[in-house]
Amino acid sequence: MTDPRLLWVPGVDEQRARLIRLAGQVRSAGLDALVIAPGADLRHVLGRSQGSHERFTGLVVPADDEPFLVVPRLERPGWAGSDAERLVDVPTWADGENPYRLVAGRLAPGARVGVDDYMPSMHAHGLGDALGAATVPGGPVIRALRMTKTADELDALRGVGEAIDRVHARVAEWLRPGRTEAEIGADIAAAIVEEGHRRADFVIVGSGPNGASPHHEQSNRVVQPGEPVVIDIGGPAPSGYFSDSTRTYVCGEPADPEFERVWRIVQDAQRAGIDAARAGLPCSGVDAAARAVITDAGYGEYFITRTGHGIGMEVHEHPFMVRGDDTPLAPGMTFSVEPGVYLPGRFGVRIEDIVAIGADGAPERCNHSPQDWRLQA
Amino acid sequence: MTDPRLLWVPGVDEQRARLIRLAGQVRSAGLDALVIAPGADLRHVLGRSQGSHERFTGLVVPADDEPFLVVPRLERPGWAGSDAERLVDVPTWADGENPYRLVAGRLAPGARVGVDDYMPSMHAHGLGDALGAATVPGGPVIRALRMTKTADELDALRGVGEAIDRVHARVAEWLRPGRTEAEIGADIAAAIVEEGHRRADFVIVGSGPNGASPHHEQSNRVVQPGEPVVIDIGGPAPSGYFSDSTRTYVCGEPADPEFERVWRIVQDAQRAGIDAARAGLPCSGVDAAARAVITDAGYGEYFITRTGHGIGMEVHEHPFMVRGDDTPLAPGMTFSVEPGVYLPGRFGVRIEDIVAIGADGAPERCNHSPQDWRLQA
Repeated sequence: MTDPRLLWVPGVDEQRARLIRLAGQVRSAGLDALVIAPGADLRHVLGRSQGSHERFTGLVVPADDEPFLVVPRLERPGWAGSDAERLVDVPTWADGENPYRLVAGRLAPGARVGVDDYMPSMHAHGLGDALGAATVPGGPVIRALRMTKTADELDALRGVGEAIDRVHARVAEWLRPGRTEAEIGADIAAAIVEEGHRRADFVIVGSGPNGASPHHEQSNRVVQPGEPVVIDIGGPAPSGYFSDSTRTYVCGEPADPEFERVWRIVQDAQRAGIDAARAGLPCSGVDAAARAVITDAGYGEYFITRTGHGIGMEVHEHPFMVRGDDTPLAPGMTFSVEPGVYLPGRFGVRIEDIVAIGADGAPERCNHSPQDWRLQA
Repeated sequence: MTDPRLLWVPGVDEQRARLIRLAGQVRSAGLDALVIAPGADLRHVLGRSQGSHERFTGLVVPADDEPFLVVPRLERPGWAGSDAERLVDVPTWADGENPYRLVAGRLAPGARVGVDDYMPSMHAHGLGDALGAATVPGGPVIRALRMTKTADELDALRGVGEAIDRVHARVAEWLRPGRTEAEIGADIAAAIVEEGHRRADFVIVGSGPNGASPHHEQSNRVVQPGEPVVIDIGGPAPSGYFSDSTRTYVCGEPADPEFERVWRIVQDAQRAGIDAARAGLPCSGVDAAARAVITDAGYGEYFITRTGHGIGMEVHEHPFMVRGDDTPLAPGMTFSVEPGVYLPGRFGVRIEDIVAIGADGAPERCNHSPQDWRLQA
């Protein structure tokens, strides 16, 4: 039976509450309105996102008026029967009309309008032209809602975390010397779906020197005995909430004499990052805690990424565990802790778990598969 | 043997020529620089596009200086060995640094900078902050290069057009009453790949009333005898150039007595649109020519879309065959002509071919599969 946490979606009342909270955020940010194009922000607020290519679709959330969803007329049928219809008015525009003027016509002239982070710049510029005032970043307004998860959202993330744990627990079925990264990756991708995800979103299989490139995906390289292999995998559950977990494995005994030392340093760094993650600490503090371990061990220059990223309806979302992001951690925040050491031409090591800040302010792991580099039989 | 036109890619000299032409366009548009984020524009100019999520990647093309490509340090290995390395300097930024300042630091303070159409607004805003001057739309500058195809690009589009024609010619293998749209669609998607595409990008199977929604994709609806079924399919060849062609079929005799009349009107409208498409005519004129046929026949209110869109490395790109787009047609322009009539709750009819304006200024079809609604045995 499918874990019900994988299927959870908010009801229309929860969607309405989100819209109301968002309007409050728009007001307190001093904006006249916020406009959200298709993407994770729209899915979060309205329970659905769709929109095509170059035609403008946007949810408009005024500070002091009813929200409305502007859609291309030919895409209107796709919204039929959705919660969006019960929540907001859905005006349409036809090909050849100017959708930005439709938005501006319902707002005051020169209104101060924020736009979501991923709105294509042409739409942001089009809105600015129609309004007679350049748009401003609206990302922080939406972020304030999305960063802190509700109890249901935390359960959704725990559920999908366990689903990816089940995939890691089966890696020995597929990871063998003589197979290519792509062959191993195809098997893992199938298992990600079998274990309850809607799809495999990313399947990094970085063997030997390929593991030293953090965003290497897969290749036709054949895995050799004794090589470290970085396996970083995840995807969305049917709920839309994402998993993301990394382990570094070796088939047999490690060939590189430095491997075990590096692996232990990365594990220590990851534990230090998680232990430091408590309500009130700036996100940059998680990065600093993990980085200190690696730097003190002499590998600082080989830890070439941030320590982590928020996770929820996007695999990478705010806040970020990185120097410069001083968002204070708060109960309900969920993020990865994934320090790594990347030795060019040799190998990489990364260990990643998702962590949630609990109601008591302490960190809770959402992943529980063994971290050991030895393949479990 | 694979049609070599499906595999064509420009060499490094052609890429360099594109960069030089683009810098010329930046100068004549009065911009100090243009910044292009990952997407089709970047692929067109640099022969490759990659970039992840929230981290900034951007090609900067100054009016009077060497272009450079800013990439996140951890993604730098992904550009190794690409033509991009031979064409431009590739400075990197590390997590925690501000990539926009890296761009601004190489331009004059307050520089007037255009950004591509699809750059996420957060990056456009970030650049504006670092520059001390809001960015402006740069889409028109890139468009000027991409709208007019070279002889090689036209061959690439002819080749992929014939590939999708081969799929339409086989539709009778899969389209039968009693099968669902999704079953039919899965077979078509496989054939799109078999016939030489890199992947199926869209497979619309709109049976009966579903055909009345132009962007309906597929459902579990079972096709009934005598129903019109709109099949709108395409995808990119390995070259990156797209196909896109629509036919409306009926299994057996049409059940709706109005169908044949509507189908003939749409066919007449499509022919009128294509015949009108000659160098010098504004794009809006193609729309007007096709629309007049449908309006005169009394179905104007049911033709709820524009008549067509440019096509190349994107399935929808400039120019658009729509009221308000007065770009004059010119040799080398390629676009769809796809009028339709959409009768809510009943059925839709759409016929779509890709058309190229030849060196003589006359239209040339890039699709040649029979338009007939009768399934070919």
